[in-house]
Amino acid sequence: MIIIMKHGATAAQIANVAARVEQMGCQTHLSQGEERTIIGVIGNGRPIDRDGIDRMSGVERTVSVLRPFKLASREFHPQDTVFSINDIVIGGEQIVMMAGPCTVESREQLLETAEAVKAAGAHFLRGGAFKPRTSPYSFQGLGEEGLRLLAETREKTGLPVITEVMSPEQVPLVSTYADILQVGARNMQNYALLHAVGEAQRPVMLKRGMMSTIEELLMSAEYILSHGNNRIMLCERGIRTFETYTR
Amino acid sequence: MIIIMKHGATAAQIANVAARVEQMGCQTHLSQGEERTIIGVIGNGRPIDRDGIDRMSGVERTVSVLRPFKLASREFHPQDTVFSINDIVIGGEQIVMMAGPCTVESREQLLETAEAVKAAGAHFLRGGAFKPRTSPYSFQGLGEEGLRLLAETREKTGLPVITEVMSPEQVPLVSTYADILQVGARNMQNYALLHAVGEAQRPVMLKRGMMSTIEELLMSAEYILSHGNNRIMLCERGIRTFETYTR
Amino acid sequence: MIIIMKHGATAAQIANVAARVEQMGCQTHLSQGEERTIIGVIGNGRPIDRDGIDRMSGVERTVSVLRPFKLASREFHPQDTVFSINDIVIGGEQIVMMAGPCTVESREQLLETAEAVKAAGAHFLRGGAFKPRTSPYSFQGLGEEGLRLLAETREKTGLPVITEVMSPEQVPLVSTYADILQVGARNMQNYALLHAVGEAQRPVMLKRGMMSTIEELLMSAEYILSHGNNRIMLCERGIRTFETYTR
Amino acid sequence: MIIIMKHGATAAQIANVAARVEQMGCQTHLSQGEERTIIGVIGNGRPIDRDGIDRMSGVERTVSVLRPFKLASREFHPQDTVFSINDIVIGGEQIVMMAGPCTVESREQLLETAEAVKAAGAHFLRGGAFKPRTSPYSFQGLGEEGLRLLAETREKTGLPVITEVMSPEQVPLVSTYADILQVGARNMQNYALLHAVGEAQRPVMLKRGMMSTIEELLMSAEYILSHGNNRIMLCERGIRTFETYTR
Repeated sequence: MIIIMKHGATAAQIANVAARVEQMGCQTHLSQGEERTIIGVIGNGRPIDRDGIDRMSGVERTVSVLRPFKLASREFHPQDTVFSINDIVIGGEQIVMMAGPCTVESREQLLETAEAVKAAGAHFLRGGAFKPRTSPYSFQGLGEEGLRLLAETREKTGLPVITEVMSPEQVPLVSTYADILQVGARNMQNYALLHAVGEAQRPVMLKRGMMSTIEELLMSAEYILSHGNNRIMLCERGIRTFETYTR
Repeated sequence: MIIIMKHGATAAQIANVAARVEQMGCQTHLSQGEERTIIGVIGNGRPIDRDGIDRMSGVERTVSVLRPFKLASREFHPQDTVFSINDIVIGGEQIVMMAGPCTVESREQLLETAEAVKAAGAHFLRGGAFKPRTSPYSFQGLGEEGLRLLAETREKTGLPVITEVMSPEQVPLVSTYADILQVGARNMQNYALLHAVGEAQRPVMLKRGMMSTIEELLMSAEYILSHGNNRIMLCERGIRTFETYTR
Repeated sequence: MIIIMKHGATAAQIANVAARVEQMGCQTHLSQGEERTIIGVIGNGRPIDRDGIDRMSGVERTVSVLRPFKLASREFHPQDTVFSINDIVIGGEQIVMMAGPCTVESREQLLETAEAVKAAGAHFLRGGAFKPRTSPYSFQGLGEEGLRLLAETREKTGLPVITEVMSPEQVPLVSTYADILQVGARNMQNYALLHAVGEAQRPVMLKRGMMSTIEELLMSAEYILSHGNNRIMLCERGIRTFETYTR
Repeated sequence: MIIIMKHGATAAQIANVAARVEQMGCQTHLSQGEERTIIGVIGNGRPIDRDGIDRMSGVERTVSVLRPFKLASREFHPQDTVFSINDIVIGGEQIVMMAGPCTVESREQLLETAEAVKAAGAHFLRGGAFKPRTSPYSFQGLGEEGLRLLAETREKTGLPVITEVMSPEQVPLVSTYADILQVGARNMQNYALLHAVGEAQRPVMLKRGMMSTIEELLMSAEYILSHGNNRIMLCERGIRTFETYTR
């Protein structure tokens, strides 16, 4: 972390801030510019109370040097994340396509769609059994019956299945039927759910919240990683802006 | 719903769209302008497949006349929502203040803060026992121990308690200790949680997601209402924009 | 225009609104739904005081049926906009590339860059002589000397030139040297400038403001078109969002 | 400026970056952390080629220590900006109100409105003679006739006048009639206009662009200040977000 002192910060203020940092077990490194004093903080691996320092007298602002995520960083894991599901390599050179209906509606609809997307080159079948709906009056999906239809269609077509899981208690059930667990954009920061899929034995597709930053997306991946699941795909689904002309 | 046909839509296209609408059990009402034909749709109370109509040949776009929420609308419930907790009227003339620490850290910290906010005029004590954290490495709250401290502090100060609930399975536990259940901004569209608090016997404070429209906030309230709980407070907590100068 | 009356609007309110519309020389068309009355307005070609109607008693909101632009619409001009500069067809099947340095700095820099981009397949040379800078202390460009270097480099390479014009009074000067006038993103709603380039004898490249909707971009094109210049290119340069990870 | 080197940056890369910085006439200050090397740059007052350094091998990113504006900063000008127009103190303790019609339409409309706002406590009369319109077909204002009406109404009511100026060549004309020159939100980064009002003998009200950051607003103020005019008011007019429920 770097602490930028205000223009005109007094020697006492600077000493005070440095003392506080050292008290936290960190080393400091002073750099006196013409206009500002900068205090470099050399950490000891433990989190620093940045808000507390931001509020100290004479401090203009602090700048974080390190990213807040660790397991999700290239520094910790320099290689690409590559894993296989039924011999389909995810994260490798080849682009993997997952396609299917928004919602599983019936055996016929699902089978017909699955065969069509397979013929068109898809590697996975997607389809929602539990649907996150903005309206409580919209069709909420077929639930477990939808999961059964997905599994049945996998038998017939050979396409592995990805489907959404919406709450921690659904994780065991959905894991029984699905090859990949999908966490939807609205649940990107549903930490109880991230915890649960982090302990599941299935790969996870994590969708970016529609107004979440990339850093927040990676922090949500960090949650899953920190609970032991490192087979994660990130899905960039676009963000919300002021423009409504296109959807 | 109103259907705006494209400039130059043919009579056959117009007839086709009208037929489709009538087939859904709705009435149509044609209005021929100089530049456009407009088809008014008079519904029968059931939802209309708007996407399907948007995709029909000759259709430019559809405009919704009614709001998508019902129980949360002034039309269904013209009066203000007013209810009491321990003789404190919420939604009435008087502004109700809820204050306290971000996180419950210890008995002393909580009691000291509670007495301070009470002295300053607060009516409720807030404090987090379960904390939604962007980082899995941050302190996640004291959990049930935090709830017990909140209840104990209520005994001492007389301030009723509001605290956050983060997943459906926490609802019964948190309801045992808290007077108001708080749904956090990141969980505003966690539908399983909305369902669970909708069935709880406690009032709910629903925080606006930082990426959510007011209409989406009201739709989330509709979820809670549709499960039987009509003691809801909406909390406007500000939205995310491009500006980072202020937080 | 369509007027959506409030639920429970009285017959008198409806009659009042209809009378006001007819007074403006328009026809009305009533549609009584179960929940709402809709008043269709059939215009006479003149603009309608929509704000005034929005404020009338019993009105919930108005919906515009027509787009606010005319010359920029496909309805008025169904064909693609296609025109040629030195036998290079713009708006046709072939993608046209314009490349060059951000700023014209020197004869050598410009010539070297021009030859490089020509070798790489570019059809036009771009380079700024007048530079819009967020800081008054940044280099503001070489001005007319930069324009002369652009013209000289065109002689040597055969590449026609596109360069930015920043104020109405620069238009004649820049038109003397450039083949295409560029209006920058920050000037997309500088109406005096749009007026001036609308009267110029040069094609215009209009860049989307980073804070502008597509409809506003088309309205700015409408300004240029309405002053007689119909050789316009629209440049989508991306918009500002909350995300700062990528630039 | 602070340069944050990548994790694992080599000694050669670090030396290279330091050499480049020193070549620019700046001093460097190295700080070796466990995970990163930080290079503090102590400037010599001249601008630094930050982009060039960002692209150097081994550099992760650079952080600016100083704000990009100078005259607009509290460091350069610690006092509040306070000035008077006809004995009305702007920037002082008392809130100054400026009110009037959006557009000057007629002598009667303007006088009637001016008397009403004066009676309601306004100190200045505002009203547009030149109107920035998204549509070229909307009424563009009365122009100089509108300015004359504003001046005439000032005579009758004693209220000084603020009105918008839209292009550099209008500045002398508008300055003849108006007490304050208004730069509209769409022109916040119209640098030719900022330059012109910076040389005018009238105070300026600078409106924030609807998708401009506060830093950009201050940079635009810096333009005006750098051309000699230090009687500037900043007008916060709200920004554009994804929310369309309120305007």
